[in-house]
Amino acid sequence: MKKQQGGSERTISERTVSRLILYRKRLSGAHEHQKRFIYSYELGAMCGVSSAQVRRDLMLVGCAGSPNRGYDRRELLAGIEEFLYRPGTQNVALVGLGNLGRAILSFFAGRRSRLAVVATFDIDSAKTNCVTFGCRCYPVADLRTVAAAARIEVAMLTVPAAAAQATADLLVDAGVRGILNFAPVTLRVPDHVFVEDIDLAMSLEKVAFFARRGQQMERKHA
Amino acid sequence: MKKQQGGSERTISERTVSRLILYRKRLSGAHEHQKRFIYSYELGAMCGVSSAQVRRDLMLVGCAGSPNRGYDRRELLAGIEEFLYRPGTQNVALVGLGNLGRAILSFFAGRRSRLAVVATFDIDSAKTNCVTFGCRCYPVADLRTVAAAARIEVAMLTVPAAAAQATADLLVDAGVRGILNFAPVTLRVPDHVFVEDIDLAMSLEKVAFFARRGQQMERKHA
Repeated sequence: MKKQQGGSERTISERTVSRLILYRKRLSGAHEHQKRFIYSYELGAMCGVSSAQVRRDLMLVGCAGSPNRGYDRRELLAGIEEFLYRPGTQNVALVGLGNLGRAILSFFAGRRSRLAVVATFDIDSAKTNCVTFGCRCYPVADLRTVAAAARIEVAMLTVPAAAAQATADLLVDAGVRGILNFAPVTLRVPDHVFVEDIDLAMSLEKVAFFARRGQQMERKHA
Repeated sequence: MKKQQGGSERTISERTVSRLILYRKRLSGAHEHQKRFIYSYELGAMCGVSSAQVRRDLMLVGCAGSPNRGYDRRELLAGIEEFLYRPGTQNVALVGLGNLGRAILSFFAGRRSRLAVVATFDIDSAKTNCVTFGCRCYPVADLRTVAAAARIEVAMLTVPAAAAQATADLLVDAGVRGILNFAPVTLRVPDHVFVEDIDLAMSLEKVAFFARRGQQMERKHA
């Protein structure tokens, strides 16, 4: 049996990665609690996750707590960050500088982060060669050259649905390996490319559905 | 054993609802294919879902296909919509008219939908009593009155993290039963209130993680 080395060589699920990102966030945001150690049940409560799940996830990244004291907060944070991140920044592009694209860009611009939006792209020549929120906008036709020069491997896709697949193909050609897709389309990409979809309209529909059911539940119990 | 009535009285999972919303979207967007019938495997392929899963989901909403012809497209769409929606529109509020709030509002404003953003709220008196993207902005202090008058039961929360829980409490007090939460905070709400989180920064981190792994995978196989 092959020895697991901190889990970094194993297949890791999306959900596990999402939880690790959340643990990191909660741990790094909780400086007001100056306790040095934290129990799995405490971290779990901060994240809405069971303590058993927390312990399994942390084992994956090679962090072991003590049953008596829990986990050393600083070691834990360092362990998760070492697993999740590479040293330095990762460059990100945004493609599609319409309403939503600008919105997303304004959200990410100026955030200190390991992820830096370094270029935007659009097909509209009225938008290209301008600087929006500190980012230059290039013509989509220059995607391959700019992405290679700026070592861009992550992109946010905020183009209209009809243009999404063709643009994703361009991104993949340009060496992009991760796409945060806001277009309401299921993208077809090669296996080595990871796509995460955010569909604002569908998320709101889901909330509305359960809001309506919540009302029914309240009425039933009333 | 209680008879199932099209599943509407059963507990339904978030994932099932998400898939049903996706089926509806793909079915209503696929007018170019004028085929009257559709097989579960075809709908599944359009949505990245197995055909067995499609059949289970559609059974839940009371839609049965024929093994020979598949599902009648129009009946299917009507069945899913009857399950997902109520007649008329559902009113939505947006709380927090900062950069992200404006962005989200600009995305939803002017969309024809069963969900209508009818009011926005902010604490900044420079923003209140103005109309942005066709929506009047009210002081957060008026939330309860305005929400009751406008029958608002769904809200999008785009306030800063530090204000999120207090604002969510106000929303719940005002009768809101569904919150689409963009603040990077795990909200505590009563059981009858449904919360869906969208954390743009965390989603981008996840994509960046898998993009990096994709690169490792490619290198290994090279």
